[in-house]
Amino acid sequence: MVTRRSFFKGTGLGLAAATAVPALLATTARAQQAPAAGGDAFLTAIAGYTFNKFKLEPALEMMKKADVRHLCIKDFHLPLNSTEEDVAVFHEKCKSFGVAGYGVGPIYMGNADEARRAFAYARRVGVKVVVGVPFEMRDGKRVGSAVLLEVVNGLVKEYDMKYAIHNHGPDMPELFPTAVSGIELIEKLDKRIGLCLDIGHELRAGIDPVESILKYGDRLHDFHLKNVTAATKAGRTVELPRGIIDIPAVVRALRKVSYTGACSLEYEKDMDAPLAGIAESIGYFRGVADATRG
Amino acid sequence: MVTRRSFFKGTGLGLAAATAVPALLATTARAQQAPAAGGDAFLTAIAGYTFNKFKLEPALEMMKKADVRHLCIKDFHLPLNSTEEDVAVFHEKCKSFGVAGYGVGPIYMGNADEARRAFAYARRVGVKVVVGVPFEMRDGKRVGSAVLLEVVNGLVKEYDMKYAIHNHGPDMPELFPTAVSGIELIEKLDKRIGLCLDIGHELRAGIDPVESILKYGDRLHDFHLKNVTAATKAGRTVELPRGIIDIPAVVRALRKVSYTGACSLEYEKDMDAPLAGIAESIGYFRGVADATRG
Repeated sequence: MVTRRSFFKGTGLGLAAATAVPALLATTARAQQAPAAGGDAFLTAIAGYTFNKFKLEPALEMMKKADVRHLCIKDFHLPLNSTEEDVAVFHEKCKSFGVAGYGVGPIYMGNADEARRAFAYARRVGVKVVVGVPFEMRDGKRVGSAVLLEVVNGLVKEYDMKYAIHNHGPDMPELFPTAVSGIELIEKLDKRIGLCLDIGHELRAGIDPVESILKYGDRLHDFHLKNVTAATKAGRTVELPRGIIDIPAVVRALRKVSYTGACSLEYEKDMDAPLAGIAESIGYFRGVADATRG
Repeated sequence: MVTRRSFFKGTGLGLAAATAVPALLATTARAQQAPAAGGDAFLTAIAGYTFNKFKLEPALEMMKKADVRHLCIKDFHLPLNSTEEDVAVFHEKCKSFGVAGYGVGPIYMGNADEARRAFAYARRVGVKVVVGVPFEMRDGKRVGSAVLLEVVNGLVKEYDMKYAIHNHGPDMPELFPTAVSGIELIEKLDKRIGLCLDIGHELRAGIDPVESILKYGDRLHDFHLKNVTAATKAGRTVELPRGIIDIPAVVRALRKVSYTGACSLEYEKDMDAPLAGIAESIGYFRGVADATRG
């Protein structure tokens, strides 16, 4: 027997990683860290939008299959007007697949009432991160709203929650196309307001997402992991190993800024049958994380 | 536009990688390197046994889905008595899915006739690697055969092919349980005789597979990529990120010995529906390879 411990992967670090991110987890009872996640402070997760063609149960089945235990909840799986009872049923269902919700959104909000409704919903759901798109109408278009962000500034204090603005890339030039377009509106606001950095849309807007991570690290509250085919509007989502974003550089940047949130795969290819692409992407992310650690 | 080329993955290296392994490829027309494979001299492949519950076409469909373009051909997809015509039809079918066969086997061979039949088959198939299990019968058991390896020694010269002995782990203690049990019989034979190192079985036999790669690098002619749950006979195959073998250490060792063969995933879990596990495993391997490259 020449088996050498040093050659095998570190295990038993899951708990340490989970305790490093208490702010994200509603209750420790719901917190389940994937065993293979190793010693990183960030979570491997999936953005609910990935499953927009699926009801909750088949979505959770796919997450279990791909060994992903953290979900950012979209309203098509748990409506904004859900009661405490609806929420309890939802969590019980997630738990039966080994999954826990860590945040909600993206939620579009066009006025103060809608903003408060989102925070009250997050409190009922028991999570501490709201991914949001705060807008106002101008010339019939949704435009990123500094006025509404002032309202959100009060809400993050009142609810003690993080609020993460989602960047949309070049498809919506008025509605947070880039990380910096959000940063410009929140610089003077509470640090609990920050970004859900979508690295695919960031690159499609012509901005290097690695640079955005490094620049805005203290404002990163959520993260959409994906890869794309081109650094232009024509770029489309592909499996994580097959795009042009340098994912090892992304992971190194997340560690450099001590990111402790979730890395949520948002997989927008083959949305009718996404399992294989999800599995390939999650596997790739874990391979990169394991190979670059320590 | 602050997109910086240096942050993006190197592309266009596929051709260089493909030309680095001409010995493995029957014809350059059939050689297609996955674009995301980067600058490694080894190929990402799948061992045909993975698909032992599937006919050729659904197996190729899964390979295409997981973006794997190299296959080690098992006889249940192309029988040993296939004619030149059968072989042509087989290759045409593979090509239509972007897949090329790079080797054949594992093929069990119990006498000189069966050994010669395997080499003649490989020549008809047009590949340069025979993965083999050379045995003789003793007390009703198949036992690794030094005598038959003397025959093989003549055949690798006559056919100018590589012959790779597959290690079986603790389940078959008399039939090449470990890499070293093969090495002991071939040390004085032609260097074209070597190993198809199965890292899962190697660890299940209590041997560190990383050490075996480093020790027997000059004899590595094929490679079964997998992960397992334990360093004992009870260890079973799992998705690549979920086992105890340190895959980053494996990849670094393969580079250290300048391995230029195939890394063939042999996935023996969920064999009735292996696609998600294959995709997760291939993704993980590519993530590790991309993150550890130069």
